[in-house]
Amino acid sequence: MRRWNGWGDEQFNLELPAQGQSFLSERVGAAKPLTDATLESVCAKVPETRLPADTQVDALIDTSPETRVRHARGQSLADWLALRSGEPGVFPDGVANPDSSLEVQSLLHYARNHNVELIPYGGGTSVVGHINPVAGDRPVLTVDMGKMNRLIDLDKDSQIATFGAGTPGPLVESQLRAHGYTLGHFPQSFELSTIGGWVASRSSGQQSLRYGRIEQLFAGGRIETLKGTLNIPTIPASSAGPDVREMILGSEGRLGMVTDVKVRVTPLPEQESFHVVFFPDWDSARTACRTLVQSRVQLSMLRLSNAIETETQLALAGQPHLIGLMEKLLSWRGASDGKCMMTFGLTGSKHQCASARQEAKRICSEHKGVYTGTRLGKKWAEKRFTMPYLREALWHLGYAVDTLETATDWDNVDNLLGLMENNLRTALQSRAESRDERTHVFTHLSHFYSQGCSIYTTYVFRVADSYSETLARWQHLKNTTSELIVNNRGTISHQHGVGKDHAPFLPVEKGELGMLAIHALSNTFDPEGLLNPGTLLE
Amino acid sequence: MRRWNGWGDEQFNLELPAQGQSFLSERVGAAKPLTDATLESVCAKVPETRLPADTQVDALIDTSPETRVRHARGQSLADWLALRSGEPGVFPDGVANPDSSLEVQSLLHYARNHNVELIPYGGGTSVVGHINPVAGDRPVLTVDMGKMNRLIDLDKDSQIATFGAGTPGPLVESQLRAHGYTLGHFPQSFELSTIGGWVASRSSGQQSLRYGRIEQLFAGGRIETLKGTLNIPTIPASSAGPDVREMILGSEGRLGMVTDVKVRVTPLPEQESFHVVFFPDWDSARTACRTLVQSRVQLSMLRLSNAIETETQLALAGQPHLIGLMEKLLSWRGASDGKCMMTFGLTGSKHQCASARQEAKRICSEHKGVYTGTRLGKKWAEKRFTMPYLREALWHLGYAVDTLETATDWDNVDNLLGLMENNLRTALQSRAESRDERTHVFTHLSHFYSQGCSIYTTYVFRVADSYSETLARWQHLKNTTSELIVNNRGTISHQHGVGKDHAPFLPVEKGELGMLAIHALSNTFDPEGLLNPGTLLE
Repeated sequence: MRRWNGWGDEQFNLELPAQGQSFLSERVGAAKPLTDATLESVCAKVPETRLPADTQVDALIDTSPETRVRHARGQSLADWLALRSGEPGVFPDGVANPDSSLEVQSLLHYARNHNVELIPYGGGTSVVGHINPVAGDRPVLTVDMGKMNRLIDLDKDSQIATFGAGTPGPLVESQLRAHGYTLGHFPQSFELSTIGGWVASRSSGQQSLRYGRIEQLFAGGRIETLKGTLNIPTIPASSAGPDVREMILGSEGRLGMVTDVKVRVTPLPEQESFHVVFFPDWDSARTACRTLVQSRVQLSMLRLSNAIETETQLALAGQPHLIGLMEKLLSWRGASDGKCMMTFGLTGSKHQCASARQEAKRICSEHKGVYTGTRLGKKWAEKRFTMPYLREALWHLGYAVDTLETATDWDNVDNLLGLMENNLRTALQSRAESRDERTHVFTHLSHFYSQGCSIYTTYVFRVADSYSETLARWQHLKNTTSELIVNNRGTISHQHGVGKDHAPFLPVEKGELGMLAIHALSNTFDPEGLLNPGTLLE
Repeated sequence: MRRWNGWGDEQFNLELPAQGQSFLSERVGAAKPLTDATLESVCAKVPETRLPADTQVDALIDTSPETRVRHARGQSLADWLALRSGEPGVFPDGVANPDSSLEVQSLLHYARNHNVELIPYGGGTSVVGHINPVAGDRPVLTVDMGKMNRLIDLDKDSQIATFGAGTPGPLVESQLRAHGYTLGHFPQSFELSTIGGWVASRSSGQQSLRYGRIEQLFAGGRIETLKGTLNIPTIPASSAGPDVREMILGSEGRLGMVTDVKVRVTPLPEQESFHVVFFPDWDSARTACRTLVQSRVQLSMLRLSNAIETETQLALAGQPHLIGLMEKLLSWRGASDGKCMMTFGLTGSKHQCASARQEAKRICSEHKGVYTGTRLGKKWAEKRFTMPYLREALWHLGYAVDTLETATDWDNVDNLLGLMENNLRTALQSRAESRDERTHVFTHLSHFYSQGCSIYTTYVFRVADSYSETLARWQHLKNTTSELIVNNRGTISHQHGVGKDHAPFLPVEKGELGMLAIHALSNTFDPEGLLNPGTLLE
């Protein structure tokens, strides 16, 4: 059974090794966990539904308290705090489970006829409040796309697959794999997030260097709107005016509900491997990454941890003997205290992998990189989707974890990274209520472009004595850093989307006329503001 | 001096070799050229300007007849017929030459205050009527961006260059080359078309396999609109809502005027070469191309001529002895009558070129390809921008040439190509006035995607006894084939844009709601319809 107040399956737990616990205690201080509310106590708070009856759709809608609790919040730290405190705030008035575009159409008619707000719901993995209902006079119906989870068509010539929008990552891959294909889209939320959600929120996967972001994978599909059905045809490329696909990508449910998604797929690769290289310092490491991507070396994945993330990962790995041995070896080869860990992936034909491996090793070596083979890379691949479970383990020790991410041009990467880390490290100390609190902050770069890269910063802090103060700390960290990001040439999000948490920062990034353009679309397709209000556009 | 009624510089002429002339005469029939009107006679027809005086902008505007004639039409066959017949129809009331964004702002204020229509003008190379003024009560001011032709900034870390929007291809490349960089965008119109025009019309270059289309190269910039200045920041990738870049790309002047263009550039490659392979039949050749691109072989360019294009190119090349020898050799190796010529480009580091060359040759050979080395590829590279001059040579022999292009998914390429070629071959014969006319039709595929490719079809027919009948023939060929394209899963344009000629076909491709989205943007930014009316949206 899926956790109602956290990540993933209840049966799956990660333990933080003792060494990891003492590391955190040393960096952040000893912590005391808060008590989680029970599901029962939260269900008891769910009010009567306000949804008007309608024979056209009643059979599709579940108004039971537990279902409404389970669809009330996503996976942001604020969501966790809300659920675990037992005060999730607003609940949807019901959850619909359509299993076809026609049923989604019925729900849209229902919304318009009865002045009901609709929230599209994929995997509920948003970390920026995409699917949280807002308080208001209108009833709110969450539309869970989970029944639309099938591979509908596979055109092997054109390498285009059609999926129901509610298909989660593992079902996307397993249904394709049966035919010898892969989509290759692996966001960290892969286990639960859905293909429709990826499109609506402009997701990016860990192997975007090979497969592209969802923008490059999304070939067309079907979107049900309040004005009718929008069918986006699949065309490889076109100069026929502005691209409607790009208006749906990132529309976060404000224009309509994606029901069928056509994506560009690839035959399963002959080979795949992940390799780890250590660099003696950040400057060499970052330059190596920039050179790799600007030289168009055919990597499938590239990730660079800064020194603190490298140290943290090795400390939390819990294999002190092995790690100690490796560190000795690295130190002997010049990579000791400030060392930075790079992981790169090779995916493709044997010939391509061999060729790219040769180039990658040469470039790394030119920048003082120490190549360590595939052992740590294998570990990374095994654990690539389990990081969110670690958050659960830390929570029960009294630590809150969250991440902030952006992307910026190369000339600004170090500057913005420094601003973000420094702010996260010191911001709590400027508040009287948290003057003595420390934050453990570390960063990796994980999506690389010739122009720049993403910056993904994790921060860990102790929970306070109360939920409200813990939330206040998070809000302070999140908001001050988000402001820094958009005021310093970063995007408010490279891969998490806008949702409600980032919506206040979007106008700085897009500018007045950029916002005018997006509002023009939203006002045209949804003049009453019934579709996911508060998300994307405040 | 640039030709006023055709392509390129008056000093540059291509001759069609005698063998080429007899080839055409055999395929299409003996032809008799029409007489071209003189520039003087057309200038004498230019009416008084209707532009109201305004001290803010008067100094920027040229209302002389010759300037207005030279900005009245683009390079479509209809444009040529209009100019050469001496009846170009509508002239702009004047041509402005701003040299800064501020001056463009002044022109926009002027347009709004005096109810004047504005047409942005780059190189004037449109083949679909982008820059043709339409008849109406409002005065029309064409805004020639030619003075804004400088490299403004080059960020070598982020590999981003900023150009004035009016910079033509050769000045883009020469200014970058001085710093060791290239944009790598080489549409056939490269000699005259501008970087702003590429953005506004969603252009694609011959080496898009390596460098991407203009969508992938356009990183941001400045657009002056009637609502103010839209600055699109450069961000490598983002999930922050719909992408405003993608609303400007292909907006064809309807939302505003692009003034500064920021593009992603690349260091000059270590190596570049173009290779030619012949295949015994279309099926093997097309499959080889599909396999090359779907296997992600790092080519920079790929082009496949069908059998008739291959035959035509060899016939027009005018080196009968050499070609005869080669054909003998090919025939001996299995590629004779139905043979198809593929050209592929390798660009990059020595290592990458060598690796890709090995893969490409292997795949070609697996599909019965006969590799002939780089000799013909060198010829292609030398002549890559001169094809439009050949059109001039044919015109003076009495032949009209035009092209139609689209893109579609792989499963539909042969079907659509067949429909297009057959229609162009037979359509004239369905009209009483041209029942005995033949059309020589041939095709290449030239932009390749894992999902599909572009289809670029050339057709040659004899001019009629009159300009009006010649135009009628063209319109019949163009319109019936365009209809076939959009009704059979092709885009109305892969690389030429919509303009006025394709606007009637856009609604079939985009659908009602796709058009609603584009209209929403246009109505918001330009509610009076002052900006390039009739283009993109009818």
